[in-house]
Amino acid sequence: MRNSRRSEVDAFIVMDVMEAARRAEAAGRHVIHMEVGQPGTGAPAGARAALAAALEAGPLGYTVGLGLPELRARIAGLYREWYGVDLDPARVIVTSGASGAFILAFSALFDAGERVGLGMPCYPSYRQILKAMSLEAVGMETRLADRFQPTPGQVREAGLDGLIVASPANPTGTILPRAVFADLVGACAETGTALISDEIYHGLHHGARAVSALELTDEVYVINSFSKYFSMTGWRVGWMVVPEAHVRSVERLAQNLFICAPHASQVAALAALECGEELEANRAVYLKNRDVLRAALEGAGVDRIAPPDGAFYLYADVSRWTEDSLAFSRELLDAAGVAATPGLDFDPGRGHRYLRFSYAGAEAEIAEGAARVAAFLSARQVLPD
Amino acid sequence: MRNSRRSEVDAFIVMDVMEAARRAEAAGRHVIHMEVGQPGTGAPAGARAALAAALEAGPLGYTVGLGLPELRARIAGLYREWYGVDLDPARVIVTSGASGAFILAFSALFDAGERVGLGMPCYPSYRQILKAMSLEAVGMETRLADRFQPTPGQVREAGLDGLIVASPANPTGTILPRAVFADLVGACAETGTALISDEIYHGLHHGARAVSALELTDEVYVINSFSKYFSMTGWRVGWMVVPEAHVRSVERLAQNLFICAPHASQVAALAALECGEELEANRAVYLKNRDVLRAALEGAGVDRIAPPDGAFYLYADVSRWTEDSLAFSRELLDAAGVAATPGLDFDPGRGHRYLRFSYAGAEAEIAEGAARVAAFLSARQVLPD
Repeated sequence: MRNSRRSEVDAFIVMDVMEAARRAEAAGRHVIHMEVGQPGTGAPAGARAALAAALEAGPLGYTVGLGLPELRARIAGLYREWYGVDLDPARVIVTSGASGAFILAFSALFDAGERVGLGMPCYPSYRQILKAMSLEAVGMETRLADRFQPTPGQVREAGLDGLIVASPANPTGTILPRAVFADLVGACAETGTALISDEIYHGLHHGARAVSALELTDEVYVINSFSKYFSMTGWRVGWMVVPEAHVRSVERLAQNLFICAPHASQVAALAALECGEELEANRAVYLKNRDVLRAALEGAGVDRIAPPDGAFYLYADVSRWTEDSLAFSRELLDAAGVAATPGLDFDPGRGHRYLRFSYAGAEAEIAEGAARVAAFLSARQVLPD
Repeated sequence: MRNSRRSEVDAFIVMDVMEAARRAEAAGRHVIHMEVGQPGTGAPAGARAALAAALEAGPLGYTVGLGLPELRARIAGLYREWYGVDLDPARVIVTSGASGAFILAFSALFDAGERVGLGMPCYPSYRQILKAMSLEAVGMETRLADRFQPTPGQVREAGLDGLIVASPANPTGTILPRAVFADLVGACAETGTALISDEIYHGLHHGARAVSALELTDEVYVINSFSKYFSMTGWRVGWMVVPEAHVRSVERLAQNLFICAPHASQVAALAALECGEELEANRAVYLKNRDVLRAALEGAGVDRIAPPDGAFYLYADVSRWTEDSLAFSRELLDAAGVAATPGLDFDPGRGHRYLRFSYAGAEAEIAEGAARVAAFLSARQVLPD
């Protein structure tokens, strides 16, 4: 049977590590999971209680395509609370996770063959979703000095139809300073580049909060999710804010492509918005975890780490020890029982020098993992200069 | 901000009727809903109980991309129970509803610009999803004599890259006889046309059960869902069976495009597979509803109805009374308080002569609706010949 060319997306390299970790665990080993990009916690208690009640209250049939009106209104309210931005709930579209939002955004904005820019390293699925939708991913190498974020100059030079920016970013955890973000918005406006701001790690900042693109412009697609700050990865519910003039066309796409986001997840998400205390407690754990892990890595001689402003990742240059981060991550798993992600999924060009550590797990687990990683690195021979 | 051409999908014409129905209800009117394509019932009790327990048992994080292994195995078992087909669970992919399955199938099989055939009338979103993915929908007019299904001859003549077939079909409820289906499979094989079999209404037959494409060939994408027979529309969980050689590439697409189907919905779906008694009781209601509604329509002079073999729709030729099914559906709503779907969403060319009635509601509602429709039609002047 025929196969399309656009279906030839790359395999996740981390799957290899995850499968090795699974085998190690099946053999009785205690593995610390620092490869997974999700909280160890589940949905907040209030969200679970709300769903349990809804399960008995009536059929959870299709919602309207744009999502439950009360959820859209409450999400709009979040923009006032978090950023002091007045947002019309009509511009909020509830989606099947950030994943569903990307599919909607890419089909709403771009035709087959158009070019969408990405600062490398970045979330690997950007490239693969673009390819599956017959779009061209244009990777732009970023620098540590720029917090691994694309620059306005790169946007002006690249000849793009669109640009995806993430702040806090995956895999680096860096946050775009307001002035740089504003310059990026300006460069996009000048060049007619459609800006997509991936804000899925908003709420998870360790110092100053991240700036939303909506503080800077209305001419942007902003994508967010209940997966990270709200600790609801498996629920597949997120949202997108689009310019007023785009609402109708995105609504039609959403009705046809998805019908609606999962109703049960929308009910749980609405309640999760009132669970600030539990969520802030999760965030406090991430901050502790970050500090413990960073200190361990630095103590072991890792001297180039992306500034870990937010999210729950450290992106560490391990080129002192290896030029093959995939083999190195296997050795780390074998020798120390720690699963981490080689940088190759995020940056095929330079990822062989990096590992990403997720510190979204429980406090004791991450402390143990940090100690194991430090011991592993300290025992390793460094490469000759 | 820029807009893509592929985002210019049609609005649903039925939305107009639904909005009018909403206004009528807000004004205190009792409207019978025969426009919605979903059961009036919710998820079966066993499914809700399983989820309520899972909510307290641990975090419902991401599942693996292909879905919970036990759910895939249980779905494979359904093919033995329902069709006597041995199916390797490795070929079963749990999806975010049939909607998610279409996105996966179209990106796995077709490149931008390729041609996918549809027998008209059909589910409107086929056309719109194809457009949003830069594919060309090739509508082929079907005939009542062929149960409104595409014919092998049409497939041989049309020069297609793919074909979507649905049995039982929406909006007609017709089932493809086994021999015709086998001929269609043969015509696809001869012409290198990738066959996608939409089996979302399987389980909902009123006479002989529908044949699955998997009884006829392994070279097919079969799409199904928990929305209809299992009464779980809002849960957004379905599945797809693909040829063995396609599993890896669809897995990669699924991981990147969706990460996974909603975990909570997968838990509920697994339990729903054991709720046969409740589901068969729902089906018995649909059969009663169909008979009451068909008798009412025929009694009022509707003499061309698609053979209502399954699903929960009657597709009625109302050209005795109107050449404008949209205006007619508005009059039906105003005069009789019944919402029905004009055929235009399903068949832009000929839908002005048809109405689709859904009889998935509660028994008393549909009986009342049938009486209202019959009274409305009986009071209407027929058009001159």
